[in-house]
Amino acid sequence: MSSHIIPPATPGAAAVVLLSGGLDSMVVAALMREAGYRVFALTIDYNQRHAIELTAAHRIAIALGIERQIDLPLDLRRFGGSALTSDIAVPKEGVGEGIPSTYVPARNTIFLSLALGFAEACGAQTIAIGVNALDYSGYPDCRPEFIEGFQALADLATRKGVEGEGFRIVTPLLHMTKAQIALEADRLGLDAGMSWSCYDPTDGAACGQCDACRLRAKGFVEAGLPDPTRYAGAAPVIG
Amino acid sequence: MSSHIIPPATPGAAAVVLLSGGLDSMVVAALMREAGYRVFALTIDYNQRHAIELTAAHRIAIALGIERQIDLPLDLRRFGGSALTSDIAVPKEGVGEGIPSTYVPARNTIFLSLALGFAEACGAQTIAIGVNALDYSGYPDCRPEFIEGFQALADLATRKGVEGEGFRIVTPLLHMTKAQIALEADRLGLDAGMSWSCYDPTDGAACGQCDACRLRAKGFVEAGLPDPTRYAGAAPVIG
Repeated sequence: MSSHIIPPATPGAAAVVLLSGGLDSMVVAALMREAGYRVFALTIDYNQRHAIELTAAHRIAIALGIERQIDLPLDLRRFGGSALTSDIAVPKEGVGEGIPSTYVPARNTIFLSLALGFAEACGAQTIAIGVNALDYSGYPDCRPEFIEGFQALADLATRKGVEGEGFRIVTPLLHMTKAQIALEADRLGLDAGMSWSCYDPTDGAACGQCDACRLRAKGFVEAGLPDPTRYAGAAPVIG
Repeated sequence: MSSHIIPPATPGAAAVVLLSGGLDSMVVAALMREAGYRVFALTIDYNQRHAIELTAAHRIAIALGIERQIDLPLDLRRFGGSALTSDIAVPKEGVGEGIPSTYVPARNTIFLSLALGFAEACGAQTIAIGVNALDYSGYPDCRPEFIEGFQALADLATRKGVEGEGFRIVTPLLHMTKAQIALEADRLGLDAGMSWSCYDPTDGAACGQCDACRLRAKGFVEAGLPDPTRYAGAAPVIG
């Protein structure tokens, strides 16, 4: 089964959802709830530049009535190597070709591994992550082939994989545009303003120029929805 | 190239070594140094029952003159699900069939992912881990097929993988017995007493009955080497 299709939940089934606090992970958590899963949210406090997203994750978990949330500190600034975890400046010139400096080395591998450990320990068989291969920044660990690779590994790596049952990595947004994701949020009755996307906030306001701001703003414009984001300066220019 | 063969180090090449403080990771770190690598050690403080192994890791890093060591706190007790990260008792009846309760859900996937992130951030292309598929406890994430799966994932997951160079996961001990590992330690001039293996120590002494104690003691006996371990009670009965 393709990873973007949410499998029907059996009674009482739990799903671990990687909840960053962004628009994408908010929609994923709501979609898993809608599909009937008990949602166990995993939020990684990786000492990211935009730590404000953690507050958004808490807000979302409360608004969605999520059963359990773990905030896990993991200081990836010890490794550095990214504009999000070191003093490298966040690029502001617009989404370009190639992998940008906001790529955090092996981040989704690390986060999915942690979700896998949490899922196995708490008896969840499903792990959901809001990766997206259309309106994204070109990160290698958001591509379908990465997700397939992790799916294969999960079944080799774990007791549950070896003993037969295995895990399912679910990526409901994989083939959606940001506009489609914004429309999903709207359909689900979610206040998109609860979520946080900007990589380089100032005093609780979004910069309006980083890739995350641009992709998010483009999504609202293309969806014909109001952009609830509070920007430090002008809103991103779209189109 | 098979993962158990250490590739020749190019001048200045660095390797990230997962250094737990056990006999196996100590030998791996020394083998990588012997092969000419600059060793960057990664030690994960996962709130393990045998946190005493962290002290051993520091001792080893100093003795080997390791260039850089990162101690990374990551509280896997938040997930639990293992005798090493919860109140489940450590089994003492000897190495049996199947996967024992000391298996920590997805531990090696998590640790290798972190090593991958560290390696990519610091420019190392090689990652070494002391997994062993002969005298081991039956953990799924110590098997050759798991290592192959992670190797495949590493190249899908990262900038370096996508841009062509990729990473090499090296497992020098994969097909060694514990006796062969003990003999390697001896050949390398390492004091095996620096390392720590016991899962359930009391007042700085090894229990002598957990799988880790039994496998270690068997290694020394079969190698014809003295066992430097200080036991709380009697040494494990071998044979």
